[in-house]
Amino acid sequence: MNFLSERMNRVGPSMIMDLLKTAAGGGFTSFASGLPDPAMFPAADLATAADRELSSSPAGALQYGAAEGYAPLREWIAEHLKTRGLKATVDHILVTNGSQQALDLAARLLIDAGDLVAVETPTYLAALQTFDSYEARYLPFSRAGTDPDETSLAQALGQSAKSIYLLPTHQNPSGLTWSEGARDAAAALIAKSRCTLIEDDAYFDLRYDGEPQIPVSARLDGAIYTGTFSKTIAPGLRVGYLCASPDLVAKLSCLKQITDLTTGSLTQRIVHRFVTDFDYSAHIASVCDTYRRRRDTMLRALKQSMPAGVSWTHPLGGMFLWLTLPEGQDADALLKEAMQHKIIFVPGQSFHPDGGGTNALRLNFVSEPSHRITAGIELLASLIRDQIGRESHTAGELGA
Amino acid sequence: MNFLSERMNRVGPSMIMDLLKTAAGGGFTSFASGLPDPAMFPAADLATAADRELSSSPAGALQYGAAEGYAPLREWIAEHLKTRGLKATVDHILVTNGSQQALDLAARLLIDAGDLVAVETPTYLAALQTFDSYEARYLPFSRAGTDPDETSLAQALGQSAKSIYLLPTHQNPSGLTWSEGARDAAAALIAKSRCTLIEDDAYFDLRYDGEPQIPVSARLDGAIYTGTFSKTIAPGLRVGYLCASPDLVAKLSCLKQITDLTTGSLTQRIVHRFVTDFDYSAHIASVCDTYRRRRDTMLRALKQSMPAGVSWTHPLGGMFLWLTLPEGQDADALLKEAMQHKIIFVPGQSFHPDGGGTNALRLNFVSEPSHRITAGIELLASLIRDQIGRESHTAGELGA
Repeated sequence: MNFLSERMNRVGPSMIMDLLKTAAGGGFTSFASGLPDPAMFPAADLATAADRELSSSPAGALQYGAAEGYAPLREWIAEHLKTRGLKATVDHILVTNGSQQALDLAARLLIDAGDLVAVETPTYLAALQTFDSYEARYLPFSRAGTDPDETSLAQALGQSAKSIYLLPTHQNPSGLTWSEGARDAAAALIAKSRCTLIEDDAYFDLRYDGEPQIPVSARLDGAIYTGTFSKTIAPGLRVGYLCASPDLVAKLSCLKQITDLTTGSLTQRIVHRFVTDFDYSAHIASVCDTYRRRRDTMLRALKQSMPAGVSWTHPLGGMFLWLTLPEGQDADALLKEAMQHKIIFVPGQSFHPDGGGTNALRLNFVSEPSHRITAGIELLASLIRDQIGRESHTAGELGA
Repeated sequence: MNFLSERMNRVGPSMIMDLLKTAAGGGFTSFASGLPDPAMFPAADLATAADRELSSSPAGALQYGAAEGYAPLREWIAEHLKTRGLKATVDHILVTNGSQQALDLAARLLIDAGDLVAVETPTYLAALQTFDSYEARYLPFSRAGTDPDETSLAQALGQSAKSIYLLPTHQNPSGLTWSEGARDAAAALIAKSRCTLIEDDAYFDLRYDGEPQIPVSARLDGAIYTGTFSKTIAPGLRVGYLCASPDLVAKLSCLKQITDLTTGSLTQRIVHRFVTDFDYSAHIASVCDTYRRRRDTMLRALKQSMPAGVSWTHPLGGMFLWLTLPEGQDADALLKEAMQHKIIFVPGQSFHPDGGGTNALRLNFVSEPSHRITAGIELLASLIRDQIGRESHTAGELGA
């Protein structure tokens, strides 16, 4: 297929998508997906919202809309983001098909082939895939505990990064959340650089302990901030957004228009109805209650069953935690074994643009009910124990 | 904003979008938009479809879905396209956010900066804007009557075009439809070239006279064919599709996934319910009846009121016709005048990558009810008569 564009050399199937297709056959305990629990979807209220929109405003709900999005929803989002410390008016908001499209539009706005993008390791796989498609190169920076390593971050920004992509809150894949100090320090470093911040805050509302934290974008000017209703309402509606300066929003709206004209009028109005006619805060609180219990279940199971030398993160929110096997252990080999026992997870290497993470795995703690979480983690622990045992046995045979 | 990507030099606001925003204040007779008549939207049936999906399959309707789209809808589309002579199975279909996204994904798959794309003049503005954003260059070819000029087309293909973009059926903006002979000839020329065909067939179902015609894509291998439910059901759902070889669909699905993961599950299922639970053919027939009458109303009004020297196309289908003023007349100046009388249309130049069309205009004949079409065309005719009169007067004063 030598007629394809250059960028297609960097575009390929997603390991996660392939994994989920393989497992779709059924019977699998999935710690692999990024799926919210469908039992949390407010389906009846959304049906009511859809019916109200289609009967009261059929023309508006079914006609093309403005590229920027449905004005009342943009206004609601702007007000909502003020509670996160962002200076937002309706002109700062562009509605997108989930926050994935917000990331894609931001990358399309900013990245030329060969441009340098600073990214944390590990980081969100589908953001890397999007940047790959614009032929970006990476300046990875590492963590020190839950925060970015400041020296590593300063180094990355010093190497003429054009953009920096951050997911500082309940990160996918690590589950980690940056401290206030780390946010201030990063904002100061980015403000001093010539770099545009893309901040992904898809998991902001899924907070299980302590107070929510003000985004890095609220601490400097010029950022592109992205969010979504996929984690709190339902991903199948495909409604997310970005918040940026009005002049950037004008440019991004031109891109949105040539990409797909506009986000669906009906689904935008369903979301707007839901957040205004129903108790959105109470709904989020109920989702958080369920997800908090599942996180606690997984943490308890890990503590009770994992062998020495295995460590994991303790997320304050979000959907994922990050498990690290002893040095030299191979998460890919573990996945092969686990699949024979009908368990799947995502090996860590996918989340590293620099090839790291071979002994790490991402575990989704919200998709499965508690009893399957416990059973799945116990089985995974025994497979890990076997793998470690086999390797030390082999090492023993080799005289190590 | 010197931090933006190179491609943004070629991305700007759409003239049509700006025009529609100006006119949104109200009271305008709009021949400018590409909007279907909202009175044709089957809102009650769509509300029923939404309710059935949300009550019978809440998890499926609200969860993330496969990047390729909802399998039952893909199967339905494949069957449907067989009636158009296309060899389609489920693996040939990718569901997109309207056919605009299908065009954007096709361009992203194929076009590198500087690549040559053969396009008819005039052609669909938002396709040009998408190709612009991938930094394409153009090889425009002209028409001879309703068909492409074969010499001009052969010349364009001979200059190493990488892709060719066609809209041969009820074209936006001209309203023209290629003959069977022209389709065969174009297919043969393209098959001999090293060029990938992107065929946009958004208006296939809106046929008012005679039999529908087999697409060019059915007459050769390797094409990317795009269609939509926006013109027959409702654009606010944002459900369209492309049909291509399974290996191209696999590549395009990777692009779809990094662009916005998937088209909305709920809206795909609403469309699928509508086309299976309700009488889609009868619905299309009723839309065509209304739009046929409006086309006839506009053609009658044009014939009765336009001054000598003005000509226009006689579309077999679609939403637009193309009006040509006498040589030297300026459609932009006419628009300024018309706006003062609360009428808008789109001047022809936007549809020409080579700067032509200054004395032409696109008129949408489906958006307005018949009495406003007649009144609007009569007013437009008087403005054109005045403009021609003023110019010959000026020419007279200058001694011409």
